[in-house]
Amino acid sequence: PRAREAGIAPGIYQPGTHNAITDVSGVQVGHVTITAEDNVRTGVTAILPHTGNLYQDKVPAGFSQGNGYGKMMGTTQVIELGEIETPILLTNTLSVPEAAAGVIEWTLAQPGNEAVRSVNAVVGETNDGRINNIRLRAVRPQHALAAIEAAGPGPVEEGSIGAGMGTVSFGWKGGIGTSSRVLPQEAGGFTVGVLVQTNYGGELTIMGTPVRRQDLQVPGDPLAVATSPDGSVMIIIATDAPLSDRNLERLAARSFLGIARTGSVMSNGSGDYALAFSTATSVRRTITRREQLHTLQDWPNEHMTPLFQSVVEATEEAVYNALFKASNVDGISAGQYPAIPVDGVLQLLGYPATGP
Amino acid sequence: PRAREAGIAPGIYQPGTHNAITDVSGVQVGHVTITAEDNVRTGVTAILPHTGNLYQDKVPAGFSQGNGYGKMMGTTQVIELGEIETPILLTNTLSVPEAAAGVIEWTLAQPGNEAVRSVNAVVGETNDGRINNIRLRAVRPQHALAAIEAAGPGPVEEGSIGAGMGTVSFGWKGGIGTSSRVLPQEAGGFTVGVLVQTNYGGELTIMGTPVRRQDLQVPGDPLAVATSPDGSVMIIIATDAPLSDRNLERLAARSFLGIARTGSVMSNGSGDYALAFSTATSVRRTITRREQLHTLQDWPNEHMTPLFQSVVEATEEAVYNALFKASNVDGISAGQYPAIPVDGVLQLLGYPATGP
Amino acid sequence: PRAREAGIAPGIYQPGTHNAITDVSGVQVGHVTITAEDNVRTGVTAILPHTGNLYQDKVPAGFSQGNGYGKMMGTTQVIELGEIETPILLTNTLSVPEAAAGVIEWTLAQPGNEAVRSVNAVVGETNDGRINNIRLRAVRPQHALAAIEAAGPGPVEEGSIGAGMGTVSFGWKGGIGTSSRVLPQEAGGFTVGVLVQTNYGGELTIMGTPVRRQDLQVPGDPLAVATSPDGSVMIIIATDAPLSDRNLERLAARSFLGIARTGSVMSNGSGDYALAFSTATSVRRTITRREQLHTLQDWPNEHMTPLFQSVVEATEEAVYNALFKASNVDGISAGQYPAIPVDGVLQLLGYPATGP
Amino acid sequence: PRAREAGIAPGIYQPGTHNAITDVSGVQVGHVTITAEDNVRTGVTAILPHTGNLYQDKVPAGFSQGNGYGKMMGTTQVIELGEIETPILLTNTLSVPEAAAGVIEWTLAQPGNEAVRSVNAVVGETNDGRINNIRLRAVRPQHALAAIEAAGPGPVEEGSIGAGMGTVSFGWKGGIGTSSRVLPQEAGGFTVGVLVQTNYGGELTIMGTPVRRQDLQVPGDPLAVATSPDGSVMIIIATDAPLSDRNLERLAARSFLGIARTGSVMSNGSGDYALAFSTATSVRRTITRREQLHTLQDWPNEHMTPLFQSVVEATEEAVYNALFKASNVDGISAGQYPAIPVDGVLQLLGYPATGP
Repeated sequence: PRAREAGIAPGIYQPGTHNAITDVSGVQVGHVTITAEDNVRTGVTAILPHTGNLYQDKVPAGFSQGNGYGKMMGTTQVIELGEIETPILLTNTLSVPEAAAGVIEWTLAQPGNEAVRSVNAVVGETNDGRINNIRLRAVRPQHALAAIEAAGPGPVEEGSIGAGMGTVSFGWKGGIGTSSRVLPQEAGGFTVGVLVQTNYGGELTIMGTPVRRQDLQVPGDPLAVATSPDGSVMIIIATDAPLSDRNLERLAARSFLGIARTGSVMSNGSGDYALAFSTATSVRRTITRREQLHTLQDWPNEHMTPLFQSVVEATEEAVYNALFKASNVDGISAGQYPAIPVDGVLQLLGYPATGP
Repeated sequence: PRAREAGIAPGIYQPGTHNAITDVSGVQVGHVTITAEDNVRTGVTAILPHTGNLYQDKVPAGFSQGNGYGKMMGTTQVIELGEIETPILLTNTLSVPEAAAGVIEWTLAQPGNEAVRSVNAVVGETNDGRINNIRLRAVRPQHALAAIEAAGPGPVEEGSIGAGMGTVSFGWKGGIGTSSRVLPQEAGGFTVGVLVQTNYGGELTIMGTPVRRQDLQVPGDPLAVATSPDGSVMIIIATDAPLSDRNLERLAARSFLGIARTGSVMSNGSGDYALAFSTATSVRRTITRREQLHTLQDWPNEHMTPLFQSVVEATEEAVYNALFKASNVDGISAGQYPAIPVDGVLQLLGYPATGP
Repeated sequence: PRAREAGIAPGIYQPGTHNAITDVSGVQVGHVTITAEDNVRTGVTAILPHTGNLYQDKVPAGFSQGNGYGKMMGTTQVIELGEIETPILLTNTLSVPEAAAGVIEWTLAQPGNEAVRSVNAVVGETNDGRINNIRLRAVRPQHALAAIEAAGPGPVEEGSIGAGMGTVSFGWKGGIGTSSRVLPQEAGGFTVGVLVQTNYGGELTIMGTPVRRQDLQVPGDPLAVATSPDGSVMIIIATDAPLSDRNLERLAARSFLGIARTGSVMSNGSGDYALAFSTATSVRRTITRREQLHTLQDWPNEHMTPLFQSVVEATEEAVYNALFKASNVDGISAGQYPAIPVDGVLQLLGYPATGP
Repeated sequence: PRAREAGIAPGIYQPGTHNAITDVSGVQVGHVTITAEDNVRTGVTAILPHTGNLYQDKVPAGFSQGNGYGKMMGTTQVIELGEIETPILLTNTLSVPEAAAGVIEWTLAQPGNEAVRSVNAVVGETNDGRINNIRLRAVRPQHALAAIEAAGPGPVEEGSIGAGMGTVSFGWKGGIGTSSRVLPQEAGGFTVGVLVQTNYGGELTIMGTPVRRQDLQVPGDPLAVATSPDGSVMIIIATDAPLSDRNLERLAARSFLGIARTGSVMSNGSGDYALAFSTATSVRRTITRREQLHTLQDWPNEHMTPLFQSVVEATEEAVYNALFKASNVDGISAGQYPAIPVDGVLQLLGYPATGP
């Protein structure tokens, strides 16, 4: 089940319709999962900020680096110009180039982009090398194109899928998770959506309670027990609030506080990155706005706190969803990375068990 | 009681002798509390990295800005040169200049500093204006000098004292708190100590459990109920691990994950700053080392994670200590900021009550 | 003479009416020069972004740190919130606290600020200890107040005045300098003004030509010859272009390119800081804008380059003005820091000499 | 001719044997130039910090972003860990993924790297789309491999070669340039080498003198005249000084001051990045050092200024070399980007002409 279906509902705000990043209107998500011989178990996940021409109508964006042991691409231009001009792709560590090639080719090929000669592909990754034969670099540019083309609105598939196919989190099978929050009208009424690719570790806590492996009824698995706090987490954040790139950067930085609540200390070997963008058309960087003096909307500093609260909550819940929706997956050498036993977790937390 | 005396012991590592920043050998702490007519209730707290000439024998240091709605002084030089050359002082928002003047005068007056013409005073603050008549700016340079002179090793007084005299945290009386961790020998055997000045808020969680005001038996207090997530937290971190300034900066950044575990989302109006330094003589920037090619020790990136874990744990516990050791203090207009009722908290958490 | 009066006119754009930071409408500058026994020769310079209530109607701002061996105060909040809420003060290294105290007291005392309990004083400095008995810390808060009160529009006094009283630059007497540029209408028609406090060194070049001491006819002065590349430069930038805080930060960063053209390599011991703000009312952070969803104007990334060019040119020229308008001033021990001999410079450059 | 052969010798320090980045012992450079039908004129340049296993024996490194309108890859890990673990590659904007793929494949294939599952490829670029049909994305991973394999010590080919094949600078043909400086023994005796890929513009100045197109005798070329300040410059810096990653970052930041001296204002559309590394074995991050407490050497902050001076000078001269060694190359549509007429420049500067 998803965490909320199991009764796990962190925070004080309510989620949106799908409790997903796609609750932010216009945002689309697509997955391509790649499995093949020789232990190829990897994939690509694409997040599209809006359904128009992303290159011509850029979205303001902010980036935050929790811990930089990672290979994320496209960050320097986001920092400088405060904007994103492509789909955002997630994949495995050694396949960032191929995913980026796919983003570039897709962008060059979009109608209206015939004269484009510069593309800032934004690609994040985590290292799925415990499950995927990562040195084979199985992802090709067409997988990236396929993930972009597969993107759609509505419910988002979670767990061992797309860029989450081969990830491991706290020694359990990790994956893709998502969640959202809708602010009350008096706080602006905005929606904040989060999607995570979880491959990190630490001392797992769920709703503040330590969840140790020895406290759960799991069939012994030497691979999974020999886990490490290293890994990585990619956090993609969408909102319809009309924020400046500076406030989007601050929003991105808060997501690591949600990660902290799950037990991470952003270990040395972890690539922990967050990227936030606004879908509000009143701040969209259209051709017209990019070429002349223009007006835009701005939500003030003074009212950012509820948005910060939202992103922390949604990040925490997205991580739980990634864990709860994951499936048992084999490791590259032997044994399996099991999904966390949800009923065991609920028992540990003193929550009612879920149904059969 | 301190949190640990009440059975609250976050994390996986053990504290040092005093469970205080002073467990890092050589570190000293001093407080001056200032109360006077017209609701003056404020103070100064000084942290000395070592007992020698701090200006001549500088300590490597790293700085991290969680949220910058604050007036901390001295940060740019720490960022550039990776070192601290004075005591670190904490006080209230509008008294940073006077505390800095005290640091400068003290430094100029130290034997051996007769030719010094440049001093980078490091002074942090939180806004105690809910309890202290802050616009009177009651702190004078001599208070800063007195706090430095009062500094000593051993147990550290916590709660409503020094720079914590007038702070408020989660609607309760905040203050100064401290804690430490000692790593196992196989993780390096180092000590990490943390001291916090808590004036921030959010949705308080203790050991992961939400602690709402309505769940505690508190005599109604209109002032305290009308709280806000704004405020600030200053976090000072000491370690005897021989770290580079880069790794000290990373260590500082982790402390906000400990703050996150107490329920903060680093609200817009919060000045959340962390400063970490190393006391290891093998990295100390002595006159000799600063004047010529030299050797120093370095603890590698690959083994930083236990230190990150330690700082997160010690920060969380230091916040609990600040809350648990605080006293009821009057607000500037009417009513009181009460100390959090520890037994009520323990009951809520399902922990045994503390003794009489 | 000012540089331009001597025929020295760097760059491709034209200056404004006064060729000063005050060409940006509403900007005011005030100086207080302090001389006393025991070699006290120092001062304070104040720059006011507009003539209204600066705290209530904040200006967007960006900060850049060229080299951080300096004690500038107020930077973290500018970075986080992208705004300035006080006059900007310049003084000497060891008097930053007193200048900051003056800024805070002035702000608290302004009509409309009766409830203000938090003030982010922005104070920069350079080290005038070669000329001023800096350890006496002669600046008092009332000097800061006086500099603010002295501020006015129109021509700005340059050279050995205010915060430039005791500065040294390239071994010559330095000081305050200012310059401006007005963009052509097709580039937006905006004004950019720069004010510098020059206390830095290096291998002086003027209009690209190396200007070595041995090439100038100067009465030998052992003090001045024994110069060092260390020092510092503070650069304050005003513009009426409606820029985001991000683009103001980029504008600030460009000013160091102007400094580079004068021969600096931003030496280790230099505190090189730039601060840029916009006076455009269409981006001013009024009470109304700070409390609700609002609209503001924005000048796009794509058209920033002429503004960058302007700030580089005006910074270069402001430095020449600081040098050319300085007076001979005694050093603290013996000898004098002479003003650069302008006619010698012109002869070296092959320019016509100035009149008598 | 190279600039120095033409009498153009900026700065106060002397170059090394080859006046090239390869004067830093162990550094190797390799080029692959790619030309084909349909106006393919591009390439790859590889810089190898040492001749051993770069992944196992990493070099400390620092990164600086002058202006981030660029797609450089690998920066976040350099910032976090302060080290480089691969060859550094330069290519065109849209071919970063293919160059990165080559770096990853080469690294995975090196003896000793059989277990490597994470590689941080460092790839920079400039946009050669004025000369190269960049949308064809002609660079393949094998070109990157070939550039790495082609790397060698000694003199470095400059101008329209490798990643400089299709670049344009100040409206003239740009390219690859390199230069070095050797410090006097009393300043440490270290070598600093710089390699640039110049594709940027502005108001060209050479040795401080404006060099305008209309002042040079050039066959009229409509393409070249219609130039823009946009473009980009990549700056790679090597030194044998045993520097911390923090001081390498500071060194990198200074290179933009050298760029400033050539007339750049780091225009909005420019991707201006600098990367500095140390080859000193006393700071190399060997397997042993990365796994345990270790000692390393450190050159102190206080003596960094001559290194800063060196990098500014060598960057300026490397740019002149890129211009002076470039060849006339056709643009993609019509006309040519001519090499700058060296004799015309010398005449403008009042220098003796070079021989026939």
